[in-house]
Amino acid sequence: MSWNTFGRVLRMTTWGESHGPAIGCVLDGCPPGIALGVSDIQPWLDARRPGQNRFTTQRQEPDQVRILSGVFEGKTTGTPISLLIENVDQRSKDYSEVAKAYRPGHADYAYDAKYGFRDYRGGGRSSARETAMRVAAGAVARLVIPEVNILAYVSEIGGDAIDPAKFDAGEIGNNTFWCPDAAAAQRWEALVDGARKAGSSLGAVVECVATGVPAGWGAPIYAKLDADLAAGMMGINAVKGVEIGDGFGAARLTGEQNADPMRPNETGGENGPAFEANHAGGIAGGISTGQPVTCRVAFKPTSSILTPVETIDNEGNATEIRTKGRHDPCVGIRGVPVVEAMMALVLTDHKLLHRAQCG
Amino acid sequence: MSWNTFGRVLRMTTWGESHGPAIGCVLDGCPPGIALGVSDIQPWLDARRPGQNRFTTQRQEPDQVRILSGVFEGKTTGTPISLLIENVDQRSKDYSEVAKAYRPGHADYAYDAKYGFRDYRGGGRSSARETAMRVAAGAVARLVIPEVNILAYVSEIGGDAIDPAKFDAGEIGNNTFWCPDAAAAQRWEALVDGARKAGSSLGAVVECVATGVPAGWGAPIYAKLDADLAAGMMGINAVKGVEIGDGFGAARLTGEQNADPMRPNETGGENGPAFEANHAGGIAGGISTGQPVTCRVAFKPTSSILTPVETIDNEGNATEIRTKGRHDPCVGIRGVPVVEAMMALVLTDHKLLHRAQCG
Amino acid sequence: MSWNTFGRVLRMTTWGESHGPAIGCVLDGCPPGIALGVSDIQPWLDARRPGQNRFTTQRQEPDQVRILSGVFEGKTTGTPISLLIENVDQRSKDYSEVAKAYRPGHADYAYDAKYGFRDYRGGGRSSARETAMRVAAGAVARLVIPEVNILAYVSEIGGDAIDPAKFDAGEIGNNTFWCPDAAAAQRWEALVDGARKAGSSLGAVVECVATGVPAGWGAPIYAKLDADLAAGMMGINAVKGVEIGDGFGAARLTGEQNADPMRPNETGGENGPAFEANHAGGIAGGISTGQPVTCRVAFKPTSSILTPVETIDNEGNATEIRTKGRHDPCVGIRGVPVVEAMMALVLTDHKLLHRAQCG
Amino acid sequence: MSWNTFGRVLRMTTWGESHGPAIGCVLDGCPPGIALGVSDIQPWLDARRPGQNRFTTQRQEPDQVRILSGVFEGKTTGTPISLLIENVDQRSKDYSEVAKAYRPGHADYAYDAKYGFRDYRGGGRSSARETAMRVAAGAVARLVIPEVNILAYVSEIGGDAIDPAKFDAGEIGNNTFWCPDAAAAQRWEALVDGARKAGSSLGAVVECVATGVPAGWGAPIYAKLDADLAAGMMGINAVKGVEIGDGFGAARLTGEQNADPMRPNETGGENGPAFEANHAGGIAGGISTGQPVTCRVAFKPTSSILTPVETIDNEGNATEIRTKGRHDPCVGIRGVPVVEAMMALVLTDHKLLHRAQCG
Repeated sequence: MSWNTFGRVLRMTTWGESHGPAIGCVLDGCPPGIALGVSDIQPWLDARRPGQNRFTTQRQEPDQVRILSGVFEGKTTGTPISLLIENVDQRSKDYSEVAKAYRPGHADYAYDAKYGFRDYRGGGRSSARETAMRVAAGAVARLVIPEVNILAYVSEIGGDAIDPAKFDAGEIGNNTFWCPDAAAAQRWEALVDGARKAGSSLGAVVECVATGVPAGWGAPIYAKLDADLAAGMMGINAVKGVEIGDGFGAARLTGEQNADPMRPNETGGENGPAFEANHAGGIAGGISTGQPVTCRVAFKPTSSILTPVETIDNEGNATEIRTKGRHDPCVGIRGVPVVEAMMALVLTDHKLLHRAQCG
Repeated sequence: MSWNTFGRVLRMTTWGESHGPAIGCVLDGCPPGIALGVSDIQPWLDARRPGQNRFTTQRQEPDQVRILSGVFEGKTTGTPISLLIENVDQRSKDYSEVAKAYRPGHADYAYDAKYGFRDYRGGGRSSARETAMRVAAGAVARLVIPEVNILAYVSEIGGDAIDPAKFDAGEIGNNTFWCPDAAAAQRWEALVDGARKAGSSLGAVVECVATGVPAGWGAPIYAKLDADLAAGMMGINAVKGVEIGDGFGAARLTGEQNADPMRPNETGGENGPAFEANHAGGIAGGISTGQPVTCRVAFKPTSSILTPVETIDNEGNATEIRTKGRHDPCVGIRGVPVVEAMMALVLTDHKLLHRAQCG
Repeated sequence: MSWNTFGRVLRMTTWGESHGPAIGCVLDGCPPGIALGVSDIQPWLDARRPGQNRFTTQRQEPDQVRILSGVFEGKTTGTPISLLIENVDQRSKDYSEVAKAYRPGHADYAYDAKYGFRDYRGGGRSSARETAMRVAAGAVARLVIPEVNILAYVSEIGGDAIDPAKFDAGEIGNNTFWCPDAAAAQRWEALVDGARKAGSSLGAVVECVATGVPAGWGAPIYAKLDADLAAGMMGINAVKGVEIGDGFGAARLTGEQNADPMRPNETGGENGPAFEANHAGGIAGGISTGQPVTCRVAFKPTSSILTPVETIDNEGNATEIRTKGRHDPCVGIRGVPVVEAMMALVLTDHKLLHRAQCG
Repeated sequence: MSWNTFGRVLRMTTWGESHGPAIGCVLDGCPPGIALGVSDIQPWLDARRPGQNRFTTQRQEPDQVRILSGVFEGKTTGTPISLLIENVDQRSKDYSEVAKAYRPGHADYAYDAKYGFRDYRGGGRSSARETAMRVAAGAVARLVIPEVNILAYVSEIGGDAIDPAKFDAGEIGNNTFWCPDAAAAQRWEALVDGARKAGSSLGAVVECVATGVPAGWGAPIYAKLDADLAAGMMGINAVKGVEIGDGFGAARLTGEQNADPMRPNETGGENGPAFEANHAGGIAGGISTGQPVTCRVAFKPTSSILTPVETIDNEGNATEIRTKGRHDPCVGIRGVPVVEAMMALVLTDHKLLHRAQCG
């Protein structure tokens, strides 16, 4: 079932295919009176934008966002905010071969099995282009939670991880990998370049930390903050795994090792406990604890590779396919602003939900 | 915001605290005409039931389910199915200390921060007892997808993993750990016993495989099959990580390694391609491919341990707490039937959603 | 599709058939810290309860509600509130004839067409007994909106309307018809008695007024306060029409006649305008204006009558049916507490929604 | 709370203000493989379009719809369908006075009370222009239910009703009032013209009949077909009342009079009973019976009138206001295509919901 809406009271609905005239989203439920202009959104889109260097797809899209509704005299009115980006650089001819054969790792076969046919141009609805609208909506969401700061970065590419001891947030903007470890960024340059030249691709891990989240957002069951984050992150293209806090690492700890002991907060009880660790990733029983909310997200290697892969065609005959389009050798890199956006959308939704119930 | 409903068209709503008179759930949207009796549900509850051996909590609950509505002359009527289990073995006095101090790793502090107070008896709404109702609802869901077979098992406890080469599905029922590797099961006996005696606890990894899922269930965006599975699994108590297919492992593969090549199916094209690998875990672009749907779920070690942990009390003063109640040394073990139940609920929901849109 | 949940963030899910062991509901999303006990709910159920006099069904149900979850030490915890009423006076044998033939005006035929079969005992899920749970949930909702006062009454039975000039709220509790006009109540006694003795039944109109609703609840589109009220009221058994404010009467007015002019409020601007009329029923553009919210609800005559009606049986053969069970000669009378409950649920939902978005 | 989405599995989300650059909607959940082009939608928009004669607003909008997504090679793909109409004839200066004073009958005051400020240009989000998108989405929905025929018409203007004996469906397209009674249409011409010249306005009643709806769509509780219709119709601008079948008239009938007796269907049992009446409007217990689904909708007179009305300004001071913009003297007339569209959307949603649960 087509279900292009995300969120419970702050609801984002996206639409559009990579080779249609435009993509867009409707963000509904945003509080009124928030100053909002294109300049609040465009920088985040520019950060995600393809075609900026040789490590990302060479598709050239200016990704200029327009605000079509929901803003009056520079402020949100509380009515739905419609955002639209025109598709400029569509080259449908790149995709002629894809029309006939199923690309392994893509949704081609699954679409045909579900719908009976598919829009084969550039992945249609499954194109990573859809994530541009999440970034745009996330930019608006950030304005609703000024108390929160969200930071994501790549912590691992092709199995080569950063050295946590060398973590430097200031480095993240200094390289094209959103890498907080300068030495790792240098290694990755060779690594990703090698994969690109070999017609191959690499996976990556993105980490995200949200600080400033007050204790009390979330819910005990089903609309848990961690469950909603898991859905939001797993729903990003190419994502295959999500961890909150220590994630799978927690499965290897003992109860004592995994405890996050609490001490009195020297700044006063109102500010909550001083936690001595954060194995839980800032969430207990589905509810935020006031600690940083942390998650890790695994991106598979780009499925579109130049190396031929065995497959079948629409009629079930054996063939092979090379994906000649313009693709990222490591989609995880461009996943960073998308991960941040989904974090912003989930947290904003829960801020509103919390005040709905608890005033 | 309290949000105790899971699912889009097959919707499960659970209620109840571990120390109230009963727990229950309402399963809405179940197709009519399905043969359903207590005997379809009770065996799954018995499998999950505590108090069966020294590796799980000694709380003694018969967990006898009653069907209060939605069934007439032995068949579902299409109206809401109300299931109820009375709480028999509540011993509130065990929890007196918890009323005053916050247990690290539990939601105690988060509840107080959110709601201003909490039902401190046995974790209240956050008790693992709530998962009994998921198992019950999942048992009903299984009847709606007879074409699917769901199997979960523990693949790792305290960092000690099974040997995949020794995987034997027939072993799973032969030991108290749902372990498919007889040698690992033997090692775990000592491991878990040691943790229990030391007043400690251990984490675990549960794997789940659903075979028989036809290609075409799921959706391209937001209601992706993998996103809904991630929400369902991450929403289980003590879960901190979810992987679909190779999960974080996929982040370490190249595009060629991670491809799932397709070959013609010798049994005929109608049955879809013969896939040569299943790194994707049976889901591409949010839609099932016809391969087995696989996921891995990380359970943290039980937070309730006898070893004292530093914490603060309701008034912000330093103290420490030992959790003397009856608790599992490894909650992941009892997570196995819950993981299966969530898989069943998600798949059933998507079967119904698929036929809503695609007939 | 079975969809037994009402509300957007305050969500009521009901379950149960009139001849099953019990009926119940789960009220999710209720704010925490509200004093709640059985004594807050039972009086409203007693008001709705059947078997009290000869104008309502002679079925004898004590309708004693139990609170099974969501309350701790006398206060709501913010987790789902489960309410349950056991069915005591089920006499299935009364309904043997109904199993074979379709009762005109009932859902018998529609159920068979939809589900392939039906629980024919007492209307199954379509029994007016389901409305007891709405009354119970509505009683809880009222506690969340103490600023609002809700009053419903019968304004017309069998075409005989009250005289608005004789409206006396104090009279409503003095007669069994919830009638605010003592003279009309006297006339109705003969009218309804006559219908009962003749094996016939009568329709009725119920009016409901909610005072104290602040300006600003509701939404411009789709989740309009009036649209949600319309859904809530039309969803009550036997209801065939809903009006907000002047309703169909407004269609006969000119723009000048229908205007609700505003004057400065002598008590100060903070309290909003002093409206000179309330044709709009307290709602403009889907949002409350601060005036009383008013609606009118039309109940058809009870379909279960002793007079034989032509129908067909399960196999399509001509037959006729008399409904010999215990039924109200005028279901609209017992609709009064249900209308109040739906008003309470809708208003409470919108109070929470409003503060979600607007703080 | 802003909630601009209508429907349960076929979901329409609209956006846009009358004086912004465009209005639009996203229709999600549409089945795949349906032939769809602009020519399937545009005629319905043209029917609703303003500026066509002196009985409707003189605003000139070509209302040319564009399909931005969800269609490939002339067929729906099953992904979200984005529709957009550019606003051409915005004259913001017409509304300068409205910025300062509250128009009675409009949502001006309610918006300010809710959001703290408002987009005062042309009613902002509450403009009847929003209904253009419902008509567009409804045009798509019609294609999903080819078995159903939907017909709406005006049955009453300013209290002057058609003569049911003169009902002629063929007349509806022959006059500008969608009037099925030629004589009434002639009377209304003078009536509406008089109101227009007097700077006044008139209310109207629109009736809608859907034939071909099979028995079995809908649900017993909450998602009742009639409850969803009530919400859909009451949510149309200016609507104050909704009736299903006999509506308020049913409240004046006896049980015998209101019965819809059933006789064997001479064409065979598979086609359901031959009903001898349709007081119920084709819905019993929330589920369609196979008879025509009928409803009546009351539109209040246009609130924007040239006659001055007493009101207050933003600061609470007494003033009066004449609404000088271009407005319909009877908004109910242009409500006809909108009523048809909401009927189409509700029925389509329930067709999909029915097959989700019942296959």
